[in-house]
Amino acid sequence: MSVDMAVKVLDESVGKIVLIKLKGGKMIRGTLQGFDQHMNLALERAEEVMDDGKSDSLGTLIVRGDNIIMISPPPA
Amino acid sequence: MSVDMAVKVLDESVGKIVLIKLKGGKMIRGTLQGFDQHMNLALERAEEVMDDGKSDSLGTLIVRGDNIIMISPPPA
Amino acid sequence: MSVDMAVKVLDESVGKIVLIKLKGGKMIRGTLQGFDQHMNLALERAEEVMDDGKSDSLGTLIVRGDNIIMISPPPA
Amino acid sequence: MSVDMAVKVLDESVGKIVLIKLKGGKMIRGTLQGFDQHMNLALERAEEVMDDGKSDSLGTLIVRGDNIIMISPPPA
Amino acid sequence: MSVDMAVKVLDESVGKIVLIKLKGGKMIRGTLQGFDQHMNLALERAEEVMDDGKSDSLGTLIVRGDNIIMISPPPA
Amino acid sequence: MSVDMAVKVLDESVGKIVLIKLKGGKMIRGTLQGFDQHMNLALERAEEVMDDGKSDSLGTLIVRGDNIIMISPPPA
Amino acid sequence: MSVDMAVKVLDESVGKIVLIKLKGGKMIRGTLQGFDQHMNLALERAEEVMDDGKSDSLGTLIVRGDNIIMISPPPA
Repeated sequence: MSVDMAVKVLDESVGKIVLIKLKGGKMIRGTLQGFDQHMNLALERAEEVMDDGKSDSLGTLIVRGDNIIMISPPPA
Repeated sequence: MSVDMAVKVLDESVGKIVLIKLKGGKMIRGTLQGFDQHMNLALERAEEVMDDGKSDSLGTLIVRGDNIIMISPPPA
Repeated sequence: MSVDMAVKVLDESVGKIVLIKLKGGKMIRGTLQGFDQHMNLALERAEEVMDDGKSDSLGTLIVRGDNIIMISPPPA
Repeated sequence: MSVDMAVKVLDESVGKIVLIKLKGGKMIRGTLQGFDQHMNLALERAEEVMDDGKSDSLGTLIVRGDNIIMISPPPA
Repeated sequence: MSVDMAVKVLDESVGKIVLIKLKGGKMIRGTLQGFDQHMNLALERAEEVMDDGKSDSLGTLIVRGDNIIMISPPPA
Repeated sequence: MSVDMAVKVLDESVGKIVLIKLKGGKMIRGTLQGFDQHMNLALERAEEVMDDGKSDSLGTLIVRGDNIIMISPPPA
Repeated sequence: MSVDMAVKVLDESVGKIVLIKLKGGKMIRGTLQGFDQHMNLALERAEEVMDDGKSDSLGTLIVRGDNIIMISPPPA
């Protein structure tokens, strides 16, 4: 069993820009500072990405893991 | 009791294309890179599959297990 | 206390066709391959059963236990 | 503290007909075969009880405890 | 920290009539037989209390704790 | 890390009037008798506070912690 | 793995003004007094921030962590 794969992907994304899809449909983009075992994320220079492509700056941000549906790490 | 069956099916699907149905009805298809005990999945070349058969590329993706209803491994 | 009854019923159903009712009302029917302590189920030759009696083939399937309302084992 | 009261009431109901109210409003009636510490129930000769008093036979059934609001044991 | 206060209040209410407010708004009144650490309650001579003050007899009842918003013990 | 801060604030509020906001929007005010590690609260002389400022007496009350959004301790 | 990042960001925010987004859309701003491992927060001089920029004073406040979507610490 590949127990550590999600951790590995997140680990490799630290310091890079990730895209996060939240329950309710909101999209957040920001530089991943760190994460914990609940998938709580710390982001820098975060911004909410609107459907029309516009974005709204949110600065530094802690996102609770239980609100997250999906995380897209940066392209390799 | 067949405790390890879900793990076994997932394990055999690593490196293959799986289809994932999320709460809310979204369908994601991608190559399974790995998973953990929460059924968090790491996918490569993921895409959202629309009702009309079209798809929307999502790249590499971490999907939180608690959003998942069903996972279809590839046909044997 | 009959702690093992749900496990016993599931255990006796392995290799047989079970009917599963999911939250949201969907019905899935398939051959039970195995299960785990979260009631995650592995099914073979699964199909979604529609209200009008028609069915839609889903193949092999992992169903997360927390989406399940009820499981009907095959008649004895 | 009367820690074992719910267990005691369920224990005394094994082999008897219980009425179960599920989240969402559905009512299930059946002979209790057993239960576990999650209040998962195994029922025999279960039937869904409709508002108009009619019932729909469901046979043997496992009901996941987290869908249950209330359980009525048989009158003493 | 007053860790045992909820337990103490429930403990003193055993054998007395309590009023229970459930998620979704339903009100249940009955004689508390016992409870456990999940706040699962066993009630005797329970009845659903309607908004118009009428009530509907439910007999003996197990109420799962996770459906409960508030419990009113009897006036001292 | 200030692990005990929520406990400390609650602890200092025992015997005083607190205002509680529940999921769904209901507001409860009462004298805090005690609490436990789930943030279950025991209140005395509780009352529901309506939007129009009126209140509805509820007497002694146990409120399950998982229904609580926010607790306002009394002004220092 | 950067396990302690969310804790670190919160830790550095104690005594400073944070902005909290709750499930359901409410925004709370206040001086962080402390937090615990459930992300329960103790705030001072809290206020609800309305969409129109107005705010409503809430005083000292305990916010249960499971209602929180995001926390914005103060700009560095």
